[in-house]
Amino acid sequence: MGRWDGWFTVEHHEVHSHARAGRLHTPHGVVETPVFMPVGTQAAVKTLSPHELHQVGAQIILSNTYHLYLRPGSQVVAEAGGLHRFMAWDRPILTDSGGFQVFSLAALRQVTGDGVRFRSHLDGSEHFFTPELSMAVQRDLGADIIMCFDECLAYPARRDEVEASVERTTRWARRCHRAWQEDGDPDRQALFGIVQGGAYPDLRRRSAEELAELDFPGYAVGGLSVGEPAGVTVAVLDVTVPLLPAGRPRYLMGVGTPDLILEAVWRGIDMMDCVLPTRMARHGTVYTSQGRITVRNAAYARDFGPLDPACDCYACRHFSRAYIRHLLKVNETLGMRLTTIHNLRYLQRFMERLRQAVREDRLPEFRAAFYREEGAALGFRPPEPEPLPAG
Amino acid sequence: MGRWDGWFTVEHHEVHSHARAGRLHTPHGVVETPVFMPVGTQAAVKTLSPHELHQVGAQIILSNTYHLYLRPGSQVVAEAGGLHRFMAWDRPILTDSGGFQVFSLAALRQVTGDGVRFRSHLDGSEHFFTPELSMAVQRDLGADIIMCFDECLAYPARRDEVEASVERTTRWARRCHRAWQEDGDPDRQALFGIVQGGAYPDLRRRSAEELAELDFPGYAVGGLSVGEPAGVTVAVLDVTVPLLPAGRPRYLMGVGTPDLILEAVWRGIDMMDCVLPTRMARHGTVYTSQGRITVRNAAYARDFGPLDPACDCYACRHFSRAYIRHLLKVNETLGMRLTTIHNLRYLQRFMERLRQAVREDRLPEFRAAFYREEGAALGFRPPEPEPLPAG
Ligand SMILES: [Zn+2]
Ligand SMILES: [Zn+2]
Repeated sequence: MGRWDGWFTVEHHEVHSHARAGRLHTPHGVVETPVFMPVGTQAAVKTLSPHELHQVGAQIILSNTYHLYLRPGSQVVAEAGGLHRFMAWDRPILTDSGGFQVFSLAALRQVTGDGVRFRSHLDGSEHFFTPELSMAVQRDLGADIIMCFDECLAYPARRDEVEASVERTTRWARRCHRAWQEDGDPDRQALFGIVQGGAYPDLRRRSAEELAELDFPGYAVGGLSVGEPAGVTVAVLDVTVPLLPAGRPRYLMGVGTPDLILEAVWRGIDMMDCVLPTRMARHGTVYTSQGRITVRNAAYARDFGPLDPACDCYACRHFSRAYIRHLLKVNETLGMRLTTIHNLRYLQRFMERLRQAVREDRLPEFRAAFYREEGAALGFRPPEPEPLPAG
Repeated sequence: MGRWDGWFTVEHHEVHSHARAGRLHTPHGVVETPVFMPVGTQAAVKTLSPHELHQVGAQIILSNTYHLYLRPGSQVVAEAGGLHRFMAWDRPILTDSGGFQVFSLAALRQVTGDGVRFRSHLDGSEHFFTPELSMAVQRDLGADIIMCFDECLAYPARRDEVEASVERTTRWARRCHRAWQEDGDPDRQALFGIVQGGAYPDLRRRSAEELAELDFPGYAVGGLSVGEPAGVTVAVLDVTVPLLPAGRPRYLMGVGTPDLILEAVWRGIDMMDCVLPTRMARHGTVYTSQGRITVRNAAYARDFGPLDPACDCYACRHFSRAYIRHLLKVNETLGMRLTTIHNLRYLQRFMERLRQAVREDRLPEFRAAFYREEGAALGFRPPEPEPLPAG
């Protein structure tokens, strides 16, 4: 029996869907799935302290290898004793591979068989990222879950481009796996493979099958939430998730909104992350049980009720929409903190309800009620899976 | 016996100095003096929540009438139920009169007998502030302590200018007193008179005597910390504080640094406020028991110790200089929060030690040790009172 057999325990399969409830057992504690992971790009979830992340109920957070590699540098984090010690976060962390940012943020990219040459988006300095370097940096950061270095394309992408990126992603995944085994910390860090293949079902199948041969501790669905319509997202999940090993956690990267979280969980996804709820919050828009509100707007200048009367977060227990609106208008950072706390708490409570619906085999009722009531107020409609190109 | 007799109780006079320890009894609780008041300009102490202000031990905070009058407007605060409710701060608040900002921030000022016409520093809109308007705005805000609308000059100022400002300040103080009595909340809000007179002892005397006739619940020393050397500050305190009614609290506006706090307390001051410790913190500079450090600097990139090993604040208990430096460098607002928490906690602990030294008649030892050790490390030297012009 391998080190990673049994680290993820599926405790219940919802009878009407592909959804499942489980637990991830990590060196920094247990994570109940399905789980939403807030994003702490630069070793901090923007505006929040670890104390506040605890309070909103965050079980695990994501941090970005590309950003930490540039600042403060993974050596500094390693000397600090790893990312957990550095940022004083005692629960699990997942780091991405840096690939997504190298391909989306950095300038002057040159992809070779070996890796990617790029210039920093900060100061133009030149860097060369390889699968081995991504593994070394992630080992230094010391997260509980680390990701393979992959190539992620925007949507739409031509078939030949996607095919080449699948081939490259598989080659790089093999190198990541080897580096992890030989120079990494394969007993404490769970390495996930990332399935690419764009909107092409046969390429998704090929990617999933090639990665499954490596027997990763977990698998991610990459290349979604890159500009495609929601109907494509769910259609790709429909064909991809069944290809992933059932006993391993499945992570959908970059999703996001309550509707797509629900759709992904329905289809058997266990983990998700997205910057949207925290970014929205900093711009003054929050999810509430009565719809989405942009509390910055003048309409809330004399609204002395809480952001959401149904919410139990610090912001909703103490402050009014009028006060938060004032803070946002006068650029007091406390305003962004309060909206961020609220949005994250909103999503955590959403996940708690979702997990309970999964465990109680009530997912169809939960989904129907969501699109009839709270989700409808938020402007969400059930996505219709779009037909995908045949292979 | 008047409403305000006994609201301030002096419990101990330090035997070697003019220092005293006492208590202010306000509608929102008791304040132990001498006290330092953090500044919450726009109904928030920048970057902090009320929860964090509690944690650093803030007993009372100051907020700015000019800023709140412009945004969100005192009507909005009044409709929210007052500033305490609006910002969810349950301990005492002091509001200034708006005078200082009108004279320092606003544009196109025109001073008439009635008041000051000015343009907002934000949008150029025209406003006319009078003593009566300042009182009405401060009544709407509902602070525990409110201030007379005064004219504060920069240093140095010609004698004729200072004399005119003393006359105006007295006239305006009478109007403030009347408005407070007739249209204010004179049973719940303590109105303080503000003594002006620049560096001219005879004008200070005249200002103090004219204000004392009105029997204010408290008295402030204004017109200091406006650019003068520390030797002038303490020389003005030497001649001014003895002129203030002994049974009323004495508030030195705009001070500040640990050395001047100590010198002011020695001379009989009970209350102080200053934006400096929080502003310094946001720029990455903190007070510590081992000196002042600018944690933004590269020297701290790999310093994994706390800001101050002697400090018990949230920042020092959980985070390293290296992490806080990283946050400041990458513009994560958590960095400014942590330095702000630390500096305010530093000053609160300084005030606690100072109050104890007063109560135990140890102020000379405390002062000597300060200038020999901690204060010396911070770069402070005992100020020499400068000779002031004869009247
Ligand atoms: Zn809330
Ligand atoms: Zn501290």
